[in-house]
Amino acid sequence: MGETRGRVQVQLTDAFWKKKVEVVQREVIPYQWKALNDEIPDTEPSHAIENFKIAAGESSGDFYGMVFQDSDVAKWLEAVAYSLEHTADAELESLADSVIDLIGRAQMEDGYINTYYTVKAPEKRWTNLRDDHELYCMGHLMEAAVAYYQATGKRKFVDIMSKAADHIDSMFGPEEEKLKGYPGHQEIELALFRLYEVTENERYLSLAEFFINERGREPHYFIKEAEERKDERKFFWNGKFGYNQSHLPVREQTKAVGHSVRAVYMYSAMADIVAKTGDEELRRATERLWKNVIQQQMYITAGIGSMEHGEAFSTDYDLPNDISYTETCATIGLAFWARRMLKVAKRGEYGDVLERALYNGSISGMDLDGKKFFYVNPLEVVPELNRVRGEHHHVKPVRQPWFKCACCPPNLARLITSINHYIYSEEENELFVHLYMGNDSVMTVGGEEVRVTQETNYPWEGAVKLTITPSSGKNHAFTLAMRMPGWCASGQLSINGERFDIGDNIKDGYVYINREWAPGDIVDLYLPMEVQLIHANPKVRENFGKVAIQRGPVVYCIEEADNGPNLHTVSVPMNPASYVASFEEGLLDGVVSISCVAEKIELEALSEGPLYKAAEFSAASTRTVTLKAIPYYAWANRGEGEMRVWLNKLK
Amino acid sequence: MGETRGRVQVQLTDAFWKKKVEVVQREVIPYQWKALNDEIPDTEPSHAIENFKIAAGESSGDFYGMVFQDSDVAKWLEAVAYSLEHTADAELESLADSVIDLIGRAQMEDGYINTYYTVKAPEKRWTNLRDDHELYCMGHLMEAAVAYYQATGKRKFVDIMSKAADHIDSMFGPEEEKLKGYPGHQEIELALFRLYEVTENERYLSLAEFFINERGREPHYFIKEAEERKDERKFFWNGKFGYNQSHLPVREQTKAVGHSVRAVYMYSAMADIVAKTGDEELRRATERLWKNVIQQQMYITAGIGSMEHGEAFSTDYDLPNDISYTETCATIGLAFWARRMLKVAKRGEYGDVLERALYNGSISGMDLDGKKFFYVNPLEVVPELNRVRGEHHHVKPVRQPWFKCACCPPNLARLITSINHYIYSEEENELFVHLYMGNDSVMTVGGEEVRVTQETNYPWEGAVKLTITPSSGKNHAFTLAMRMPGWCASGQLSINGERFDIGDNIKDGYVYINREWAPGDIVDLYLPMEVQLIHANPKVRENFGKVAIQRGPVVYCIEEADNGPNLHTVSVPMNPASYVASFEEGLLDGVVSISCVAEKIELEALSEGPLYKAAEFSAASTRTVTLKAIPYYAWANRGEGEMRVWLNKLK
Repeated sequence: MGETRGRVQVQLTDAFWKKKVEVVQREVIPYQWKALNDEIPDTEPSHAIENFKIAAGESSGDFYGMVFQDSDVAKWLEAVAYSLEHTADAELESLADSVIDLIGRAQMEDGYINTYYTVKAPEKRWTNLRDDHELYCMGHLMEAAVAYYQATGKRKFVDIMSKAADHIDSMFGPEEEKLKGYPGHQEIELALFRLYEVTENERYLSLAEFFINERGREPHYFIKEAEERKDERKFFWNGKFGYNQSHLPVREQTKAVGHSVRAVYMYSAMADIVAKTGDEELRRATERLWKNVIQQQMYITAGIGSMEHGEAFSTDYDLPNDISYTETCATIGLAFWARRMLKVAKRGEYGDVLERALYNGSISGMDLDGKKFFYVNPLEVVPELNRVRGEHHHVKPVRQPWFKCACCPPNLARLITSINHYIYSEEENELFVHLYMGNDSVMTVGGEEVRVTQETNYPWEGAVKLTITPSSGKNHAFTLAMRMPGWCASGQLSINGERFDIGDNIKDGYVYINREWAPGDIVDLYLPMEVQLIHANPKVRENFGKVAIQRGPVVYCIEEADNGPNLHTVSVPMNPASYVASFEEGLLDGVVSISCVAEKIELEALSEGPLYKAAEFSAASTRTVTLKAIPYYAWANRGEGEMRVWLNKLK
Repeated sequence: MGETRGRVQVQLTDAFWKKKVEVVQREVIPYQWKALNDEIPDTEPSHAIENFKIAAGESSGDFYGMVFQDSDVAKWLEAVAYSLEHTADAELESLADSVIDLIGRAQMEDGYINTYYTVKAPEKRWTNLRDDHELYCMGHLMEAAVAYYQATGKRKFVDIMSKAADHIDSMFGPEEEKLKGYPGHQEIELALFRLYEVTENERYLSLAEFFINERGREPHYFIKEAEERKDERKFFWNGKFGYNQSHLPVREQTKAVGHSVRAVYMYSAMADIVAKTGDEELRRATERLWKNVIQQQMYITAGIGSMEHGEAFSTDYDLPNDISYTETCATIGLAFWARRMLKVAKRGEYGDVLERALYNGSISGMDLDGKKFFYVNPLEVVPELNRVRGEHHHVKPVRQPWFKCACCPPNLARLITSINHYIYSEEENELFVHLYMGNDSVMTVGGEEVRVTQETNYPWEGAVKLTITPSSGKNHAFTLAMRMPGWCASGQLSINGERFDIGDNIKDGYVYINREWAPGDIVDLYLPMEVQLIHANPKVRENFGKVAIQRGPVVYCIEEADNGPNLHTVSVPMNPASYVASFEEGLLDGVVSISCVAEKIELEALSEGPLYKAAEFSAASTRTVTLKAIPYYAWANRGEGEMRVWLNKLK
């Protein structure tokens, strides 16, 4: 194992994200620790730590919780690891060390770790990959181990998980005596890849490839496995293996189907492998699936998985706003995938989707205080319907304190605390800037250290200032490549005050600046943040004749708190210049709100009227209103009320 | 018991309805008879006739089927009765007689009839009114008995059901020793009223009133009853007695809630009682509920009950077009109720709703051949979604052969075959014409017989010719009151060619013609049938910015068969004069279709495009199309495809 080669040296200074990281540190991580230890009154116990104690033989009792309960501990540890990168915290680190020790003690002699099977049925290990999440849980523990090693330099957790990976490798693989199985919930693939990156153990890369390649082959492993355990439910999820993307060999898949989190975790691993191996067939499959998701199945908020049934992708262009599922974890997974696609190719569209996910449908999952969470992120809410209609029951008009199936809050915690990992990437002699947020960093480019500081008030303002200082104090030639966001039609760039021509140096959404950088060189990027009225492809039935408001990467919504009820009667003007954006310090922790003069139908007078008539109802009752829109991610922070992203166009 | 006083002497000659009656006679009644006798291969057995044989001790085996299986036999008999009014059929009548005899033999000594309890648990009769449909099934048998008596003059079935009613009366009522229960599914109330009308036995009227008045009182009967049978499910349907409208005493109810068929059957009985007794408080409650349904919860097709969960009313103005429930039976029940409201008061709006139900959301439940049926009648269908999305699973893009819970097909059969009962009503010295359809009838008005013939090509043309001939051959003074449909802004009327002033003689939607009628007097009513563009109250979110096409009482839809896919991209002109209506003999058994020049967005070119952009997608791809609309009731008779009632407005 090499040095802590991936160790991140990007210190966040960003106003927007630092606040979110602090909320996670202050609220989410401590709260989740209590939850894992069943110290939250009046909630379903988690039992997750207790499960490890029982598995380690240090406590008595039975396993309790979901079959994937171990992953909650893993995600907590991963978030703790990232948190320690931002802020040293001896007490927290010591707590994490003790949990890692406990995991080690719960590990079986042969390397296997899974409290459910260890406690309940050790003889039945690896007999139900389809449903039982053993590989999934070990995958999350591997991710946590890698993060903890990168944050602290401590190897113990990576050693534990390497032993687990070695055990898995002894059980699964192309060799005749090994099982040809793969997980019912993907995660191990990308985790093995991360473990490979820090350990450089090629077997982990091969094993990740094996899981990807074996998936969906005939004879179908899940059928064979079910027959062997005499499981009469020969098919899972209504007979459709599409639910877990094993309906076809991965390389033959062309459309995103099934459980969206499973899907994007798998696509992430595919991108990892493609970037590493250059596997051309897998690259084509990965890019096909990317195109399908982004061009046919993604909400403007980067929400994906529009169906509650199966928490799944629906069909092309089926993106209902009111009964969407759009799980927080799925958008987080989309960010994971987008980030990895940037390793496959430096294309602006990957960064655009990453940015769309980060500023919209992921962080909408948490309230401003880090105390309440959305599992489901709809684009249109009328609270009464969520109480009355069965089809809306999964949609909550306000965030909930915690979940029994607690996947989203800890997933958000690890995304937010690792946000600094998403900003840059280094390739040979190039430094790529994918995201704009304040930070002070030391990068290695072309074999030399370079200090890069970024100053910006993004996402509220489009000015970004980069200061470049080779650590040697001498000039250093390398290419700086900066993403030109898809939402920005015409940015400007200057170096040390001198204009740099973007048009001549742009390729696939990145502007390439190849020069000999002198200490203190300053790059000023200016991305005009106009209010934009976004149209959906008319194939999207639900958005036909509507527009959404976007400014920079931030998608807006209107809320009852600002605009009263009956938001469906609002029609907005079609000239972007008639919208006014202004930063409001005191609103929702400080946001840019957007106002315009709109029309709204006065409905109060109609309560006694007929339902239908052969004439307009509205003529007499249309009134002009000043409409106020707020960032979508910040909705439902002021009590319950209507919300809507897509708005009628004024004629 | 008096003469067959209700016996209908209205012979249908109407082209539109006679065809539907014949389809029911030719297909539905024989098919259902086979179904009742388990003679349809490859379908779930009904066992309904066999259940009666077992209950009668004439066959062995166990009860099989739904707890309300008896009602299928009842509805078949009721439809047979109406069918015999149109067409004598000795074989069918003899078959019906034999079934009635069987029912008589299955009746218990004390009058009780219910094959489920008789076969399975006679000692448990009347212990679960909430769930077990005993009163419901006997109610349907009573309705059938009344119809059979009116059609054939044969008293046996009425005698059987009177004995059953006497038994019920001995079990339920205000007297201390009797049960204070009422049915979990209303039906007995309106059935007892019908039985009262033919038998003139006041106890049946009182018993119907008792059931209505007792409903929803505290302490709640269903809670008490459940405790007595130690049923742990203390509450039914998610703890809400609104499901069966026993959440409040009936007189205190202000909004239609719960299972929509239960609701409108109850409201029908309430109207019966109000019309008979003049009960003022009950009248106010009935009218309040009417207003709520018609002004807040009814689709333009007269579909009601917009939620699949509970087959229930939702909340005011919540009328989604694509996931509507709008059960065929609920619209049929609405027709029952509207017809009875016309006994409470002669108001055109009741006739308007009756007509809306008859020409739209009820008969849409059956295909043109009488072989396939819709349980659910959506106003917007994209077939792929009904296969993919869980929230759409109850919506079928094509009609189904039959149903295990076979309520809708026989309910349609009895509605269609009894349509001639809906046309007229006689009050003292007034003859009311509620509906326009061809018939040749002998009515009793002011104590004298009057022959009335109606000739019309309704609903395709608005000309109606009435010929009035007192049977005495002499002049006879009475008032003829004709409904002026709400959809018609300005009708014209002439008597023997002389113009009659409508404006001076109209009241609440009826034009009153008080004169001494001479044999052969001719009334010509002309109701101009313009194409109308109907707007929904803007409180209906789903129809905001849309219009529906209506002509006369018929609501139109557009189908993929005529207009290609992607119907959501169609926008229609707002000038009704630009629409052309024309009768097409060969289309859908002969309908008036409506055409216009509309705009449609060309989507084929967009398949590779982005999902979102800051500009219109449509500018380059809008094309002009000739749109063709067909009557809603006739949709899905040409294979599977998209359908849509509410259309975007052209700007």
